[in-house]
Amino acid sequence: MSLLVVGSVALDSVKTPFGEATDVLGGSGTYFSVAAGFFNRVNLVAVVGNDFPGEHLELLKGHDIDLAGLKTQPGKTFRWKGEYGFQLNEAKTLETHLNVFESFRPELPDAFRTPNLVFLANIDPELQLEVLHQVKRPRLVACDTMNFWIEGKREALIRTLREVDVVIINDGEARELAGEANLVKAARNILDLGPKTLIIKRGEYGVLMFSGGTVFSAPAFPLESVFDPTGAGDSFAGGFMGYLARQGLHEESLRCPPVTGLPFDEAVIRRAVIIGSVMASFNVESFSLDRMKTLTFEEIQARYKEFQQMTSFEDLLH
Amino acid sequence: MSLLVVGSVALDSVKTPFGEATDVLGGSGTYFSVAAGFFNRVNLVAVVGNDFPGEHLELLKGHDIDLAGLKTQPGKTFRWKGEYGFQLNEAKTLETHLNVFESFRPELPDAFRTPNLVFLANIDPELQLEVLHQVKRPRLVACDTMNFWIEGKREALIRTLREVDVVIINDGEARELAGEANLVKAARNILDLGPKTLIIKRGEYGVLMFSGGTVFSAPAFPLESVFDPTGAGDSFAGGFMGYLARQGLHEESLRCPPVTGLPFDEAVIRRAVIIGSVMASFNVESFSLDRMKTLTFEEIQARYKEFQQMTSFEDLLH
Repeated sequence: MSLLVVGSVALDSVKTPFGEATDVLGGSGTYFSVAAGFFNRVNLVAVVGNDFPGEHLELLKGHDIDLAGLKTQPGKTFRWKGEYGFQLNEAKTLETHLNVFESFRPELPDAFRTPNLVFLANIDPELQLEVLHQVKRPRLVACDTMNFWIEGKREALIRTLREVDVVIINDGEARELAGEANLVKAARNILDLGPKTLIIKRGEYGVLMFSGGTVFSAPAFPLESVFDPTGAGDSFAGGFMGYLARQGLHEESLRCPPVTGLPFDEAVIRRAVIIGSVMASFNVESFSLDRMKTLTFEEIQARYKEFQQMTSFEDLLH
Repeated sequence: MSLLVVGSVALDSVKTPFGEATDVLGGSGTYFSVAAGFFNRVNLVAVVGNDFPGEHLELLKGHDIDLAGLKTQPGKTFRWKGEYGFQLNEAKTLETHLNVFESFRPELPDAFRTPNLVFLANIDPELQLEVLHQVKRPRLVACDTMNFWIEGKREALIRTLREVDVVIINDGEARELAGEANLVKAARNILDLGPKTLIIKRGEYGVLMFSGGTVFSAPAFPLESVFDPTGAGDSFAGGFMGYLARQGLHEESLRCPPVTGLPFDEAVIRRAVIIGSVMASFNVESFSLDRMKTLTFEEIQARYKEFQQMTSFEDLLH
């Protein structure tokens, strides 16, 4: 199935307790696409400056990413500089230079305008809406957002959420968006805004998915060395959406949607959540997308099995 | 099987964002015993003052708890006063009056000296050792502890850990005990001290169990109203140990222990972890042990099923 993502492609400078990296490949669109590319071809819409290294373009192409929607503009590529403390849960942003991203207006190539699945990475909700106005009846739309937009562009964000099926945000964002500290109540408030499914990312504690009346809890993979958490959330979304795209649509759902309200069975969606968690767990093992460069499909399958072993327990006998 | 617990029986005054309660029944030994009593008879060793209300004694007796080891001493019962903020993850202790607990020296009645299972709740590790010296070859010993002992009585605690099979502590305590921020590495360090299994409680994020080479992750039950988290950890331990006691020993294990190193199969231990999580989730729904007063075995089984529905996912097909 065709999968479209709109997001940022950036050059990041990151410092963690374990080292630092300067001007390395980053951006929400990048992390998403590379993770999704392990499962399905990805149509990426983004912008870079003319300083963007050709080797990064080659890396993206090598991961089944169609770059027809990646515009190169005169000027510098979006740059982000951040630092993590020992807790590794939240980055402290040191510098943000939007550069060519400042005037970014997504323009979809014709070939990208009939996607089955769409992921709107964390960008201005008005741009997220512009993307949706350029595509024709996607089967599933997912989005991310952040506190900056929740606080500064709440109205536009609410309009976006009305057209979105799956929201993928972190726990702090969910609480702020809902204006409610309790996550179960916050989830209900957010689903009342329109989406059918809410996936709450909780960093090292895994994710909670609220969908219809059900809750699915997936742990994060306990790692001995979390090297750089940058891009974990986008890698999760990439694994999740890429896996769904690979599955193909639930045939019956075209006629009669399953209880999920999404064109996929609950079982498929749950597997996609675990695949997302698997991709995030690999991503944080190295700086930038370094781990993705060597990652194999067999390693992905093996870690999926480890997730199963880590979470399964038997029926209560008596 | 016989189950022994040594811990505190207290009168708590608790304030949460949702209300407050004064001089209500509390204490690690109490929460443990009441939760465990749903599954197996519990032999409780503790001390109270002569101000301890008779109705509480009746409550304990009504939950299959043998009070032959509960000493009543002249003076006041141990009192704790604490407050929780909106995060509800950590109590702020406002007052601690040890009262009769200050001179507490556990003395086991003869009938209590051959337990199959022992739980050493969070008390001075020297007293934990004294208990172990009074019992004859238990099949499984579990213990809790806290930062106060990790910092103040580290040496005695290390000696206790050498004689313990299962350690049940929270994440902050695990990190401090191991002197290591990464939980996976911290777990390895703690298992190197002697125990075969480490269960790390993470409040609203559930528990992680490290045992031999395996990790088991169990979520917490997502609740709409967490009323009072006091006693959640001890209710977890009570459900865990009570369920194991109810199962009976793994027959074969008497001759040849399973890979867990404990006299129970991994599958039984995992079910016990979920039962512990179930009991903790009920306990936080009300102040003190109020929820336990009305809780039924059918409700426990139903929530166990909900845990299964919340965590299960299928094999990866392709």
